[in-house]
Amino acid sequence: MSNHQTAAILVIGNEVLSGRTREANAYLAAQKLFDRGCKLGEIAVVPDVQDAIVVTLNRLRDQFDAVITSGGIGPTHDDITMDSIAKAFGVELIEHKYILQVMTERFGKEGMNDGRRRMTRVPAGAHLIRCEKTIAPGAKIENVYVLAGVPYIFESQLDSILPEFGDGERPFIRHEVDVALPESTFAKELELIQDRFQEVEIGSYPRMCGNKPCGKICLSSKNETALKQAIKSVEAMLENIGH
Amino acid sequence: MSNHQTAAILVIGNEVLSGRTREANAYLAAQKLFDRGCKLGEIAVVPDVQDAIVVTLNRLRDQFDAVITSGGIGPTHDDITMDSIAKAFGVELIEHKYILQVMTERFGKEGMNDGRRRMTRVPAGAHLIRCEKTIAPGAKIENVYVLAGVPYIFESQLDSILPEFGDGERPFIRHEVDVALPESTFAKELELIQDRFQEVEIGSYPRMCGNKPCGKICLSSKNETALKQAIKSVEAMLENIGH
Repeated sequence: MSNHQTAAILVIGNEVLSGRTREANAYLAAQKLFDRGCKLGEIAVVPDVQDAIVVTLNRLRDQFDAVITSGGIGPTHDDITMDSIAKAFGVELIEHKYILQVMTERFGKEGMNDGRRRMTRVPAGAHLIRCEKTIAPGAKIENVYVLAGVPYIFESQLDSILPEFGDGERPFIRHEVDVALPESTFAKELELIQDRFQEVEIGSYPRMCGNKPCGKICLSSKNETALKQAIKSVEAMLENIGH
Repeated sequence: MSNHQTAAILVIGNEVLSGRTREANAYLAAQKLFDRGCKLGEIAVVPDVQDAIVVTLNRLRDQFDAVITSGGIGPTHDDITMDSIAKAFGVELIEHKYILQVMTERFGKEGMNDGRRRMTRVPAGAHLIRCEKTIAPGAKIENVYVLAGVPYIFESQLDSILPEFGDGERPFIRHEVDVALPESTFAKELELIQDRFQEVEIGSYPRMCGNKPCGKICLSSKNETALKQAIKSVEAMLENIGH
């Protein structure tokens, strides 16, 4: 099986949509996927609502090689991700024997209350995603990876699945060039450079340094030779305009 | 015209998907919409690719009362938002006389290079979104608000359109209750409380305090009376279980 070359992230969480929590998991995954050379094509944040999760998941898993979800796999009523994933795939949600076993070993039979029991359920046919930080696993079903929302658990689970993404030996490389000019003065020249280097993604990110326009031109590519040439062209172009 | 009760945010930016930049504008807008009592239903982050912008915008503007976009309205080649919005609405992109006039006044005729000229274009029929921080306006077309990606400009433009969202006199109110128990011990009781208070959104957000499970139960509602009753129920429930 070849590695996933494109991916999407589906964040499930009212806490992000209500502005309570600043999203952190998609940001972490975006960096790690970039470093693996896997193209992240979309991030979607949806509420803890089954229809929204089902529709968005089915759209994303059809459109990208893989989807990573974050959130909603705990023991409380607002944790509806596993139910929703099962519904999206049209499979049953089943109590997983292995999860039941390890959780029972940890908490004892009397400790297996309804909440913990809820966490033993995964969509039928799913593979478990285990990590160091918790005994309650995530789940993989076809091209969908269902991870926790709590950031330290998300990160640990993500690390365990990353080898299936991109190609670590050919990652994206990024380089940034500082700019002390208004964007409009180099926009046309930069477009010509972008046209010449199709393998390099070039973006311009302006800001203000005191009351003067400044910013960065950001270049990234898997092709190191093309990247170096594009960087040289940008630097020469800026020097030319600046003087 | 009544105010928008639901909204989506469309972030346009390779820099977020590549993990270079931690998203900040949707986070800010989420907080401000919550405080206005407008329900944010989805955040989508898509690349600087016209098809992705057009398809996602048309989906979101159909599904929610309003869409706020962020990013891609500067002078460089990767700024393709205005083109994409025009395409999504099936209208032409036109040079706006007012923008051309104020930019020419500021930069002089000789300063109106191709990049700045590019920033005078808006979809035909759009209204301008002016703000204190820049002379280059955003645009409103039907229920879509096209704002800048640079955070201090985004915020200024957002503030100028916020009165059209939610209902400032009946905002959402949020309250958080600290918890020093594992979620599984109160999951069932919390679900019963959620069932009783349909107008209150209740979420549980666990973490670890040292090696002990802790967290917060977060309650929000527009109905202050229901919110207060739900908070009392949660506090009583926790005290009951904790002792």
